[in-house]
Amino acid sequence: MQIGMIGLGRMGMNMCRRLLRGDHMVVAYNRTPTKTEELAQDGAIPAYSLGELVAKLETPRVVWLMLPAGATVDQHLEELAQLLSPGDLVIEGGNTFYKDDLRRAALMESKKIHYLDAGVSGGIWGLQVGYCTMVGGEKSDFDRIEPLLATLSPPEGYLYCGPHGAGHYVKMVHNGIEYAMMQAYGEGFALLEASPYGKELDYSAVSHLWNQGSVIRSWLLELLVPAFAKDPRLTEITGHVDDSGEGRWTVQEAVERGVAAPTIAISLFQRFQSRNPNAFENRVLAALRREFGGHAVVSAKK
Amino acid sequence: MQIGMIGLGRMGMNMCRRLLRGDHMVVAYNRTPTKTEELAQDGAIPAYSLGELVAKLETPRVVWLMLPAGATVDQHLEELAQLLSPGDLVIEGGNTFYKDDLRRAALMESKKIHYLDAGVSGGIWGLQVGYCTMVGGEKSDFDRIEPLLATLSPPEGYLYCGPHGAGHYVKMVHNGIEYAMMQAYGEGFALLEASPYGKELDYSAVSHLWNQGSVIRSWLLELLVPAFAKDPRLTEITGHVDDSGEGRWTVQEAVERGVAAPTIAISLFQRFQSRNPNAFENRVLAALRREFGGHAVVSAKK
Repeated sequence: MQIGMIGLGRMGMNMCRRLLRGDHMVVAYNRTPTKTEELAQDGAIPAYSLGELVAKLETPRVVWLMLPAGATVDQHLEELAQLLSPGDLVIEGGNTFYKDDLRRAALMESKKIHYLDAGVSGGIWGLQVGYCTMVGGEKSDFDRIEPLLATLSPPEGYLYCGPHGAGHYVKMVHNGIEYAMMQAYGEGFALLEASPYGKELDYSAVSHLWNQGSVIRSWLLELLVPAFAKDPRLTEITGHVDDSGEGRWTVQEAVERGVAAPTIAISLFQRFQSRNPNAFENRVLAALRREFGGHAVVSAKK
Repeated sequence: MQIGMIGLGRMGMNMCRRLLRGDHMVVAYNRTPTKTEELAQDGAIPAYSLGELVAKLETPRVVWLMLPAGATVDQHLEELAQLLSPGDLVIEGGNTFYKDDLRRAALMESKKIHYLDAGVSGGIWGLQVGYCTMVGGEKSDFDRIEPLLATLSPPEGYLYCGPHGAGHYVKMVHNGIEYAMMQAYGEGFALLEASPYGKELDYSAVSHLWNQGSVIRSWLLELLVPAFAKDPRLTEITGHVDDSGEGRWTVQEAVERGVAAPTIAISLFQRFQSRNPNAFENRVLAALRREFGGHAVVSAKK
């Protein structure tokens, strides 16, 4: 079917490629036109403004936004609300907080434009494997885009999750779980490394082994096989770990709902600490130990 | 090849079945003879004492212990130390703390009996999938039992991990990671359940979905598909969660080595709390809140 894609970053670009391979007609727009030109080589119809994108789609239109979460999405939606027609459908596929979906769905509804939220997982592997996609909104809108979802996702890799926001909610929780799983593997390998056996162990081999019939086999563990093969003690990178919002929202939601989510929360906090090796909280502790016990502190270099 | 198996519990019994299917000769002993008789029906040679087991094996013998960790293993090893001959090999396959392996290997070495430690993962699925097996000890002893490991494990599902204790150490860390992964999924589904979308969500479908190309796909998540299909809100079970020692050892090791393992530690503590809903620590908190703020407490039923 026809689709307009807005945003050709790492996710949007490869999603378009998968859609093109599935014989959908893709009209593509990106703020930086080089990306649009690049995708036109693969068969997409280029558009160099939102107006051009809208003009090149037949009504009722389907437009998928794959933009960095936040104000950029609002700016594009406000412009689209002026350009699109009643009956058109917008899918917000970014890493969006579900409460923003509720607000945006209401805005679009006031113009009789339909709105779906889609949480999309798969990262740089999605082109090859397919994108696991979680959708919220009206069921009839979900049905309408099912041919697109069937192309984008692996077999059985998409799900109608419920009303507006449900797709991004399920995706948010997915990412929260991801934080704690990653942290669990990190702690395990750190313990192996500190153990009497650490010097001799081949962590790529251990990761590969654990993927053969063990209880903790997983895709994340599969990714550790090449990671440790390339850099056996990960000495070529630092432990600076960024976070991208969804872990924070998961913990905020846990607090709002009164749900204990200690491993997800501590995995998030661990990332904060990873970026702050001389953390103020640690200096407070060191200062207190000196005050009450005369314990030595490690002085800061001047 | 020939092997003597001691202990026909859930693990040992099915490991024997897999070995028999692989055309190994299995001499089997279990304290309760009905299990031995059961396995004899499948082609094992029954033994009704350790002496009989030892007598039915050709030297140099290979004997695998698959017993509950702790004193039972020591009792059997002390008896075997009297019965076995120099050059024989004992494999300790239970959920053993690696420091016990060091002690036991030294005991057996004093009798010139070889000792390997093997961490075996796979649970009730091992018969079908194979057992992921982590081995520690002398490399030449590992080489000697490789035909057994090749039958027991899935392809590439066994690894020589290093000197005595290394197999159980790697298995211990594996189980620690398992604790935190399970907790991560638990927290995620609890958050979905508490969310505005919880009532409508089909968690079996969500688990299945997340296994199709998402970042958190794993074998544990595959197990949640039938679990939620059978009992969509898990109302037929309580949240009482036992632990079996390896989580505790992982946390003790983390403390001994000075490694931060917060998600593994909190996953272990969560299990303690799960068995203690009216925990003393919570009553201390409730009492303190009443004392300093006059906050209401929920009185105990008399």
